[in-house]
Amino acid sequence: MSEFKTVRGMRDLLDEDAQMLRQVEANARKVAELYGFNEVITPIVESYELLSAKAGEEVRSRMFAFKDLGDRDVALRPEFTASVARLVATTLRNAPRPFRLFSVGSVYRYDEPQKGRYREFWQSNYELMGSNKPEADAEILMLTNSLMEKAGLKDYAFKIGHVGVLRGIFNQEKLEDKVQNQVMQLMDKKEHRDAFDVLESSSISGKCVELLRELAKLKGTDVFEVVGRIKELVKGYEKAATAAENLLEILKLISESGCKINITVDAGFARGLEYYTGLVFEVYVPSLDIALGGGGRYDRLIELFGGDPTPAVGVAHGLDRIMLALQGQKAPLKIEKEKRILVIPIQENMKGEALKISQMLREADLVVEVEVMGRKMTKALEDANRREMDCAIILGERELKEGAVVIRDLKRREQNTVKIEKLVETVKEQE
Amino acid sequence: MSEFKTVRGMRDLLDEDAQMLRQVEANARKVAELYGFNEVITPIVESYELLSAKAGEEVRSRMFAFKDLGDRDVALRPEFTASVARLVATTLRNAPRPFRLFSVGSVYRYDEPQKGRYREFWQSNYELMGSNKPEADAEILMLTNSLMEKAGLKDYAFKIGHVGVLRGIFNQEKLEDKVQNQVMQLMDKKEHRDAFDVLESSSISGKCVELLRELAKLKGTDVFEVVGRIKELVKGYEKAATAAENLLEILKLISESGCKINITVDAGFARGLEYYTGLVFEVYVPSLDIALGGGGRYDRLIELFGGDPTPAVGVAHGLDRIMLALQGQKAPLKIEKEKRILVIPIQENMKGEALKISQMLREADLVVEVEVMGRKMTKALEDANRREMDCAIILGERELKEGAVVIRDLKRREQNTVKIEKLVETVKEQE
Repeated sequence: MSEFKTVRGMRDLLDEDAQMLRQVEANARKVAELYGFNEVITPIVESYELLSAKAGEEVRSRMFAFKDLGDRDVALRPEFTASVARLVATTLRNAPRPFRLFSVGSVYRYDEPQKGRYREFWQSNYELMGSNKPEADAEILMLTNSLMEKAGLKDYAFKIGHVGVLRGIFNQEKLEDKVQNQVMQLMDKKEHRDAFDVLESSSISGKCVELLRELAKLKGTDVFEVVGRIKELVKGYEKAATAAENLLEILKLISESGCKINITVDAGFARGLEYYTGLVFEVYVPSLDIALGGGGRYDRLIELFGGDPTPAVGVAHGLDRIMLALQGQKAPLKIEKEKRILVIPIQENMKGEALKISQMLREADLVVEVEVMGRKMTKALEDANRREMDCAIILGERELKEGAVVIRDLKRREQNTVKIEKLVETVKEQE
Repeated sequence: MSEFKTVRGMRDLLDEDAQMLRQVEANARKVAELYGFNEVITPIVESYELLSAKAGEEVRSRMFAFKDLGDRDVALRPEFTASVARLVATTLRNAPRPFRLFSVGSVYRYDEPQKGRYREFWQSNYELMGSNKPEADAEILMLTNSLMEKAGLKDYAFKIGHVGVLRGIFNQEKLEDKVQNQVMQLMDKKEHRDAFDVLESSSISGKCVELLRELAKLKGTDVFEVVGRIKELVKGYEKAATAAENLLEILKLISESGCKINITVDAGFARGLEYYTGLVFEVYVPSLDIALGGGGRYDRLIELFGGDPTPAVGVAHGLDRIMLALQGQKAPLKIEKEKRILVIPIQENMKGEALKISQMLREADLVVEVEVMGRKMTKALEDANRREMDCAIILGERELKEGAVVIRDLKRREQNTVKIEKLVETVKEQE
């Protein structure tokens, strides 16, 4: 028989990996709670129409799309924002703003598998909808910082841009939308040379292309200085100037909040997706060169999904990427290990009593396995040692007659006889 | 524009529903931990071949099956056992037994949607593999009981049978496997009349059919009496008698464990799936007539997946069904509500300070929203009241100059001025 395998691009998470993913997920949920974000659970299977409405061509062509048994065109979500936008445009249409909505779960993209990239991966997603104020943008940045801190990441940084700066110039220069999107996508892929080739052969004046070249070079960690130079450069472009001012306000708020974030402002940083309208950012680990999350402002998205105009800013984080970064930094996420106890009945007729004692211990919140392989005590103890369990409770005839059991500390290799009614406290006192 | 909707059979979970699902999931994870079950996270997308190897025709025909972009036949998992069996037959092949494996997540079946039945639903799944002992069966029953207790269910009961009793008779009577499976499936659907029509026209003697009729009627909550009668009836059938003895041992262990379970033994209770070999059971709510979970023993399953012979017993619980039962019992699951705080900056230039104070409170584990709509204080307070928040922290110019803020108790409608350095403790002391 041929061996069954996971489908290409999919993988199993076992032991510490599974625990780590669940812990990163729990952290994400905790951060959502602290910032007042409500969890929404949307389906993994959505209509193809919905999922492709917002996705760029690249994501669209890599969706797990198929027909269900009712001949409906459906797909597995490649991200959360379309589902959340659907909710805001329908079920939540008349609910009071702002919305703070949190989702977490698996998403699906048919990308070429490589280290840290799978076709099923996990994201946490936060959307703050209803506010066009810079404090909303600042909140999303701070929240992302809180998540990285809570995850235990030591070395991460933010790259921040504002698509309104470039778009403002393009629009004033009456550059067609199609060409604008093409340029933004090339810049997103860091193919600045190609982007400028497109601009050179476009309707934009040579002088303006020069200005854009200057602009695209502006980046640095002295954020107020960089934004100052951006403002200087785009003085003649009203919308671009407003965008730069907006970026400045967001950065000021972050600074005033006391939030210690390592930020690089990059005027040439554009996230490719067409729907961004303002702030764009990524959080990444410089030493690993991987992005752990990204987001920005998309004020026209909800309209695209048929909803009322609703300004919005959001972020998605890659939980797998965060795991990878944690594993890479050599100060791994600490996973709390509970004390583990094995209960061993020496004779057949003590199995019921073994189950009873196990249950008593579990009711006291202790982690208990019962020996179910019918092994002799020495074999069972060997196994418990090999598995680094902490404690064995051994039911012997003589002790049971006196209402007692033997408790063995597997680390110290000591054992004592303890009355059953004292067992819970004795186990809890052990080290 | 046509409105975007969820795909038929799929649904969103919002607010209390989402919280409840997450809480039921957390309970399931807690129970897994207490019983020493390790979580494994397997993909939602598996090969069609894997998922259909074990599924009966009915499940197989209702899978969300499709081809991925690499032309692989894949499907969304309709349950967890096939994935776990794959793991045990491959990655875990040489790991020491027993395995206690836990999974939780969404599964997919194209069933006709109705109350409490969706095409995407949630299960918790526990597999205890490697032991053929009755204490393993007892553990799975006890664990299910712990889960129901922890979920807060008041009114639930177990129905227990043993497919070895009927199979033992069928095999000794040399009834073909195909007919056996047909009869078991009809019995699973409670179509006993049809099942007996099949038996009447089979190779089985009339006398044996009569015995089976007697047997199928045996059920009751006085479990030892019912098993006694089963043993009496099947005396002439060696394997059936062994099966009855095994059932008796499991029930004795449950009784000795002190675990208070409301059990009905039903000799005619057969779970349809062909792979069950021993104990079968369901946990259900009598007043609602819905099954919350079910499982049993399947000792040959791992071989079916190409692994070494590995006796196994397991259970899956429907988390949606548990939610439905909780909502139905009028003593709903209590969801802990954290105190919720709104921070309101009165003037534009206090927004940074508002973010800073919010962060200070969150670092003290408090749930904080910041007013991001740019509303006047009275509007913001109205909104906070409507949303039943507990407390507002108001940043005014005069107070801030003195390093203080106003804290307003929204339930008692009282307010005080508090120094910022005393703010965390003051908020925590409130009620």
